[in-house]
Amino acid sequence: MRIVVLAGGIGGARFLRGLKAAQPEAEITVIGNTGDDIHLFGLKVCPDLDTVMYTLGGGIDEEKGWGRDDESFRVKEELAAYGVGPDWFGLGDRDVATHLVRTQMLGAGFPLSAVTEALCDRWRPGVRLLPMTDDRVETHVAIGEGGERRAIHFQEYWVRMRASVDAHAVVPVGAEQSVPAPGVLEAIAAADVILFPPSNPVVSVGTILAVPGIRDAVAAADAPVIGLSPIVGGAPVRGMADKVLAAVGVEATAAAVARHYGAKGRAAADDGPAGLLDGWLVDEVDAAAVADVEAAGIRCRAVPLMMTDLDATAAMARVALTLAGEVRA
Amino acid sequence: MRIVVLAGGIGGARFLRGLKAAQPEAEITVIGNTGDDIHLFGLKVCPDLDTVMYTLGGGIDEEKGWGRDDESFRVKEELAAYGVGPDWFGLGDRDVATHLVRTQMLGAGFPLSAVTEALCDRWRPGVRLLPMTDDRVETHVAIGEGGERRAIHFQEYWVRMRASVDAHAVVPVGAEQSVPAPGVLEAIAAADVILFPPSNPVVSVGTILAVPGIRDAVAAADAPVIGLSPIVGGAPVRGMADKVLAAVGVEATAAAVARHYGAKGRAAADDGPAGLLDGWLVDEVDAAAVADVEAAGIRCRAVPLMMTDLDATAAMARVALTLAGEVRA
Repeated sequence: MRIVVLAGGIGGARFLRGLKAAQPEAEITVIGNTGDDIHLFGLKVCPDLDTVMYTLGGGIDEEKGWGRDDESFRVKEELAAYGVGPDWFGLGDRDVATHLVRTQMLGAGFPLSAVTEALCDRWRPGVRLLPMTDDRVETHVAIGEGGERRAIHFQEYWVRMRASVDAHAVVPVGAEQSVPAPGVLEAIAAADVILFPPSNPVVSVGTILAVPGIRDAVAAADAPVIGLSPIVGGAPVRGMADKVLAAVGVEATAAAVARHYGAKGRAAADDGPAGLLDGWLVDEVDAAAVADVEAAGIRCRAVPLMMTDLDATAAMARVALTLAGEVRA
Repeated sequence: MRIVVLAGGIGGARFLRGLKAAQPEAEITVIGNTGDDIHLFGLKVCPDLDTVMYTLGGGIDEEKGWGRDDESFRVKEELAAYGVGPDWFGLGDRDVATHLVRTQMLGAGFPLSAVTEALCDRWRPGVRLLPMTDDRVETHVAIGEGGERRAIHFQEYWVRMRASVDAHAVVPVGAEQSVPAPGVLEAIAAADVILFPPSNPVVSVGTILAVPGIRDAVAAADAPVIGLSPIVGGAPVRGMADKVLAAVGVEATAAAVARHYGAKGRAAADDGPAGLLDGWLVDEVDAAAVADVEAAGIRCRAVPLMMTDLDATAAMARVALTLAGEVRA
């Protein structure tokens, strides 16, 4: 079975671990968000790609969910001693090596997709990990009121400010000019199932879909498209997705996110882009949303959606694949 | 008193510490060798400049004589895990931060002299540290016999091979096209004393002198030029200077090195470049060389030249300054 997953960072990576456990024989292609990439101290940092790579490759900090296991922060301390910022990004020593290899390869002319493949030669994540694009896309967030309105890098909003102020807009800068990385459209077209893990619908999955060609390819795919709600009981399971959902005018509810993606074969909103979902999983606490989602033309099931451990996560993946089978049948 | 010192790495840095102790009020300008600079993993590494900066700034690994104190090597271990080399260069985690700051500033367009000044803002070495040039100069060493003859980077010869094979030639690649960094020629012209610490006469002091304009400025300086022999009893005090001395046809003796620098006001050899030295210090064990050196037109004293501790090193510096005073008088 060929499965394509559009993944952000922590949520996407953890879901993928469950999916691999549920379907060890599947050929899984991960299309990773690169909109949260950032250049720090001259290094090209790809937090979401690395989170997937480390998580599936056994190198993740399990507790934090990002960064390397057994990490230290001596480089970061020394950079601070030089008075060189930013100081709010958790750049670990072991992690720095990844960024050095990446930055050096990019400087030598390799595209990010080739660099990612080279890094995965070490980590052997058991999936094919593709960046959504080889082009530079950087998600910026508009914050501030009146004359104080300004756009900042997503990482600054997310990590430094912890999304503590309202986001007025989320813009994947450069997305319009970007093209999907080699293999992305082919993988979507050849997929038996396409999954949206419980990643952030705006700054993770939404950014991937903003690369011209990807949304249309998903909408046109023969494969069933099944998503898992990152919103449980009206709040994000993890992270601060509600803040960026508000910026795009979407309520932080499981049903509203499904309607935001839209039903495959329909427009996602009046005059909106092509809808994407064949099926949607909400948590049991959101069982009341099932009818609402189905009314929008999307099959929906209420099942446990907390990725508390590998078994629970694998069960979620199995339900998603079962729903895909029902759609296909 | 304005003192100019042409310094390599460990020997130069330790001597400078003694000089500062001997003359705490002096304005010391250090012209640092950059011929051993190397690009590693996309980082610009300046071993000699950093050794001076760390040693005088209190950040050196005292035992090794290079690199940071309390150092760890996790970035290096991870780079090795990626299979990315070279693995023979001791790139420490704390050290990496220095190289990141430097590389980023160079990438932003600052010349190495400005970057060095910025790094010294943190370390406050108590001297003005100038790279010999802002241009790229890299010392290469010719090794191998017959068809195997090839040139390798000095660091590869020195660190990886530990100078275990003969060097046929030592070439500061790029030196001919380089110009002295801002302030270098002015410092030499304004100096009250110019010192050659017991640094490597070929790959440290020799490389500095290979930057067009610097040798002539030293030869033409009003200030007495006093050197300290890095060779004691026919062998280098530290390092493998004999290997690279052989490459330039100079015996590894205190007297031969003095003749190699040459006496100020004379040619350093038949039709050679302008001689440089007014005075030369040899170790007590080389007392027999004194007459030989003086016969070449260079004042010479035999004194203890082992930098065993700060007091011994300060005493060496004091003798050098005393000899400068005698020359001036």
